[in-house]
Amino acid sequence: MSNTKHSVVIVGYGGMGSYHGHLITENGRVEVKGTYDVLEERREASKQAGYPAYDSFEAVLNDSSVEVVLIATPNDVHKDLAIQALQAGKHVICEKPVTMSVSDFQDMVAAADEAGKVLMVHQNRRWDEDFLTVKQMYNERTIGDLFQIESRVHGANGIPGDWRHIKQYGGGMLLDWGVHLLDQMVEMIDSKITSVRSRLSFILGDEVDDGFEAVLQFENGVTALVEVGTTNYITLPRWYVKGTEGAAVIEDWSLTGRTVTRNNEVGKIEPKPIRAGVGLTKTMAPPSEEATITGVLPEPFQRSSSFYDNFADVLEGKADPIVKNGEVLRVLNLIEAIFKADETNEVVKDFDIYEPAGK
Amino acid sequence: MSNTKHSVVIVGYGGMGSYHGHLITENGRVEVKGTYDVLEERREASKQAGYPAYDSFEAVLNDSSVEVVLIATPNDVHKDLAIQALQAGKHVICEKPVTMSVSDFQDMVAAADEAGKVLMVHQNRRWDEDFLTVKQMYNERTIGDLFQIESRVHGANGIPGDWRHIKQYGGGMLLDWGVHLLDQMVEMIDSKITSVRSRLSFILGDEVDDGFEAVLQFENGVTALVEVGTTNYITLPRWYVKGTEGAAVIEDWSLTGRTVTRNNEVGKIEPKPIRAGVGLTKTMAPPSEEATITGVLPEPFQRSSSFYDNFADVLEGKADPIVKNGEVLRVLNLIEAIFKADETNEVVKDFDIYEPAGK
Repeated sequence: MSNTKHSVVIVGYGGMGSYHGHLITENGRVEVKGTYDVLEERREASKQAGYPAYDSFEAVLNDSSVEVVLIATPNDVHKDLAIQALQAGKHVICEKPVTMSVSDFQDMVAAADEAGKVLMVHQNRRWDEDFLTVKQMYNERTIGDLFQIESRVHGANGIPGDWRHIKQYGGGMLLDWGVHLLDQMVEMIDSKITSVRSRLSFILGDEVDDGFEAVLQFENGVTALVEVGTTNYITLPRWYVKGTEGAAVIEDWSLTGRTVTRNNEVGKIEPKPIRAGVGLTKTMAPPSEEATITGVLPEPFQRSSSFYDNFADVLEGKADPIVKNGEVLRVLNLIEAIFKADETNEVVKDFDIYEPAGK
Repeated sequence: MSNTKHSVVIVGYGGMGSYHGHLITENGRVEVKGTYDVLEERREASKQAGYPAYDSFEAVLNDSSVEVVLIATPNDVHKDLAIQALQAGKHVICEKPVTMSVSDFQDMVAAADEAGKVLMVHQNRRWDEDFLTVKQMYNERTIGDLFQIESRVHGANGIPGDWRHIKQYGGGMLLDWGVHLLDQMVEMIDSKITSVRSRLSFILGDEVDDGFEAVLQFENGVTALVEVGTTNYITLPRWYVKGTEGAAVIEDWSLTGRTVTRNNEVGKIEPKPIRAGVGLTKTMAPPSEEATITGVLPEPFQRSSSFYDNFADVLEGKADPIVKNGEVLRVLNLIEAIFKADETNEVVKDFDIYEPAGK
């Protein structure tokens, strides 16, 4: 088995489907057997990329040499395709958001359990280096205990011009980017979420949200802000975090950033008042230069393996999945709470599905 | 009358009291007649600054040549001193926060009405140029209609080492800086606040808040964030605002900043996908260079007069106060709602005292 690559068929050969083609080609343990798409032009694109195009989804399911079906279609058909594939004896990798509701995902998990097959959601941004840098700070207490974690992704291009505009297809930024950023928070912070407040934005006049902010309060005292915008002509930093010994910022995807911590070598130095606007302030004066230390960000947390290596390990019974279905379920449930908090304009409490690590 | 300066006695000659001394000296229509402070060392400091020090508050009230009493004491005694001064026939200028509750301020206003004297609160940050720049953008629609306004003041020095630590004296950042930043929002945005959510922070272990965030939702669709921190070793921009045509940022008190707006001369340009973390994104790619225009901040809104000129005009019956007591009352009521939203961890609604402009 170890010399044979696991054969994958990519279903939905759009932007993400073709990106998976590249990812799989880079990996030594899985291979693209072919693709399937409902659109003729995408079947052509697949052939030109060197991947045979199946004529129908049934043809994929009936091909006994296909071990894995990868689903990269619009969100509304993930569930049906996944359940069909699992029932046909295939393992399934599914793009995110895996479904638009908790109950739909529970149906998928039940189908996987019944078939005895692996179902894994492609929460690939668990491997983002910006996130892994914050995760490292959180775990290693690089700037003390983190108690405020702000994760922002700002763009100015609106929602891309495709199904992501349409509610029925699972469009909107909470389901698109939110599911990544919330998944990162929930994986990093091992504590129950006690309350969530949120606000979705509908600035562009779409029927789906073009951005949102959600504030998660965790039982361990950590507050996490997740904010996505598509109408932000100026961006705020990707990450802004506060710890008991200082603060850190990661400006953008290039990992530009720094830490600033209290200098415990010197005693407390009273800052000099500054003129701020028409008033004087000592509170808001910058700390004296010797009172703080500016440092570099730590090296990112190192995952034991890549998404596809982990997936292959899971298929071969060598490892647990890094992206666990219980975690995915928890994030979908959190997303439902965020929608509810926005719709009702209330703080939503007592909703979180949380099992402590090591469960 | 116009050649005679209005005589002011400063009560409470600490940091703010002595700052008022400088401000009044710069103004041609008011003059410092003297000061009063309970502490001997401050009476000495006053004499050295050239201001006679009264021996008692009663001596101030009994001096018929004193026209105005300026109160710059800790917050808990504002009310009693102000009412005594008004009943003694003095006009009163009071430092902010004028009181710690709506009802205390109502008592003060009633005393002023009864005495037929002027009571004006020193909300001096209405004259801050950073604020007036945003106010100008709001009024003149420089970057379209502003719909999201974020006002942050970040320091890293904790709470100054005096009465501002103590609840009984009206300490805490919501009452100290919050009252300014909320006052700015409420003066700028002429609309009813329909809901507020908030979170106070108690990171330093003081009995009062060392920072807070509050999100105000206005009936006209504007969302305003006000955030104050005293444990922020890295600062986020002083102002971050989004309008229907672009965004603007003011980094700090020096008014460093810029606007970035949509370039309506060119059609919609699809951005090229970028690699962001381990994924590709078109949504979050920077807009093409020709799709936006970077501009400078507008000149600040010009007030008709300074705080002290306006105060002198009000005394002489020539103008309405720029800082109106109805506005001050509204902000105190908003602060009570923010405390309540934090304490209950609920969204607070139906609380705002709002009268449309031109009332």
